[in-house]
Amino acid sequence: MHILWNDQIVERGEVKIDIEDRGYQYGDGLYEVVRVYNGHLYMMEEHLDRLWSGAEKIRMQLPFSKEKLATNLKKLVDIEGIREGKLYFQVTRGVDSPRNHALPDPKKVRGVLTANIRSYERPLGKMETGITVAVVPDTRWLHCDIKSLSLMGNILSLDEARQKGFDDAVLVRDGKVTEASAANFWVVKDGTIYTHPDGNLILPGITKKKILELARELEIPVKEEAVYEEELFNADECFVSGSLTEIVPVVKVNDHIVGTGKPGKITKQLLNAYIAGVEAVCGTSKSND
Amino acid sequence: MHILWNDQIVERGEVKIDIEDRGYQYGDGLYEVVRVYNGHLYMMEEHLDRLWSGAEKIRMQLPFSKEKLATNLKKLVDIEGIREGKLYFQVTRGVDSPRNHALPDPKKVRGVLTANIRSYERPLGKMETGITVAVVPDTRWLHCDIKSLSLMGNILSLDEARQKGFDDAVLVRDGKVTEASAANFWVVKDGTIYTHPDGNLILPGITKKKILELARELEIPVKEEAVYEEELFNADECFVSGSLTEIVPVVKVNDHIVGTGKPGKITKQLLNAYIAGVEAVCGTSKSND
Repeated sequence: MHILWNDQIVERGEVKIDIEDRGYQYGDGLYEVVRVYNGHLYMMEEHLDRLWSGAEKIRMQLPFSKEKLATNLKKLVDIEGIREGKLYFQVTRGVDSPRNHALPDPKKVRGVLTANIRSYERPLGKMETGITVAVVPDTRWLHCDIKSLSLMGNILSLDEARQKGFDDAVLVRDGKVTEASAANFWVVKDGTIYTHPDGNLILPGITKKKILELARELEIPVKEEAVYEEELFNADECFVSGSLTEIVPVVKVNDHIVGTGKPGKITKQLLNAYIAGVEAVCGTSKSND
Repeated sequence: MHILWNDQIVERGEVKIDIEDRGYQYGDGLYEVVRVYNGHLYMMEEHLDRLWSGAEKIRMQLPFSKEKLATNLKKLVDIEGIREGKLYFQVTRGVDSPRNHALPDPKKVRGVLTANIRSYERPLGKMETGITVAVVPDTRWLHCDIKSLSLMGNILSLDEARQKGFDDAVLVRDGKVTEASAANFWVVKDGTIYTHPDGNLILPGITKKKILELARELEIPVKEEAVYEEELFNADECFVSGSLTEIVPVVKVNDHIVGTGKPGKITKQLLNAYIAGVEAVCGTSKSND
């Protein structure tokens, strides 16, 4: 397996992460996950824009240009020869020794990039049967718009749901649904689609943005409004979205069956439109086999 | 410089951190900082207890016993020959490949420990002049009792204060003072000491616990109650506490001078008692020189 390590593509074993990398000691960094369809890095520009916007929010100087990073990531994908994959990359604020909470001088401390790509198949099983979610209090920080490496809140909320036997968590803050543990959350009621507005409480999903476009094209009414926890239990349909997830129906919330307990009509309509959009850009998606 | 790496003491350059260490990708781990006075690891038992309690909260199995870890840390301190120092150690949930938000099976994925010690001198200058703090909204997650590696919230709040020209942040959530960016916060008013009660909103400081004991011995009234932001501006004294910080006076909050603008009487009384306590356990603290 090759890794893009700063501006070099090397074998995995060659990468050296320092114990005083701020990513390792503070979760001080950002990441992105890009879906590779048919060898194309889907919505790459939007992922890069979000990375740059996050860097501005955490006052981190990225040590490369968008163009250079995009070129190097594409090189990595080509070297690994993966046509259907998940491309993961993260940038930390770099090695700061001795350890010091204060942000280092970016002239002296450069960010550290690591990226890898792995094969990935569409979650077709989940799309057919749907997933179950448990309501879990959203105890994350108040900058969930930043795709930060400080992910302890996300992983613990997922684990809380899994411990109860559910596939994922639907997070609720002050009585309102924010998102899933690592995906945006959607509710359909009486033909209208609801999802939490962007802001500091959720990640501005790239798939979310695409779904909002598709709904407008399909003339399905959308409201970017948070729904109350109680409304989950009367929803006609629920689904989650993300770059890897695409659109996956939610068929159970706690003990409540959502709608008919099967993937809903609007959910399927959006998923078909999403995939049509992917194919229009990347060509027909083929398996790695 | 030597590093304690799991159960081995090695040269710094020999340590290999994997790119898929959950500490590096999720900030998924815990840390402690122990003050070494005169070669003694001060309040070590309390630090170990807090680490074990944190591990339980994040459902992480620590791959060693308290005794073994204490023995190895002491060995590291002795090998480095540092009498006055700060001992840092962290444990991540280990290397989980391929990356997956779900918690790994602890039978397959073992935690990764790294520890180092550096010389450290008491912050005597700050104790004499005091520090300044800016009020910053507390936007951290709702498990601040866990000494987690996911520290983005802490470092950004410190930076926000520093950008405004202050030494540290005093964090305020829902109108109430929680703590500083990486230290407990205290207010003295009319002879009574106030500090935020333990719970999910602050770190249960080991120095905090010791100060509460000392105040009782000195018969200074203490209330573990959160003070409102406005009360900061009428405080007679303010100070912060921590294992490295010990007790440092706060002489300015935003544009407001605290008390006389000099370290307060009760602050000094507590600091003297704190140091007497250290000397009773560790002997007279000497410089490294």
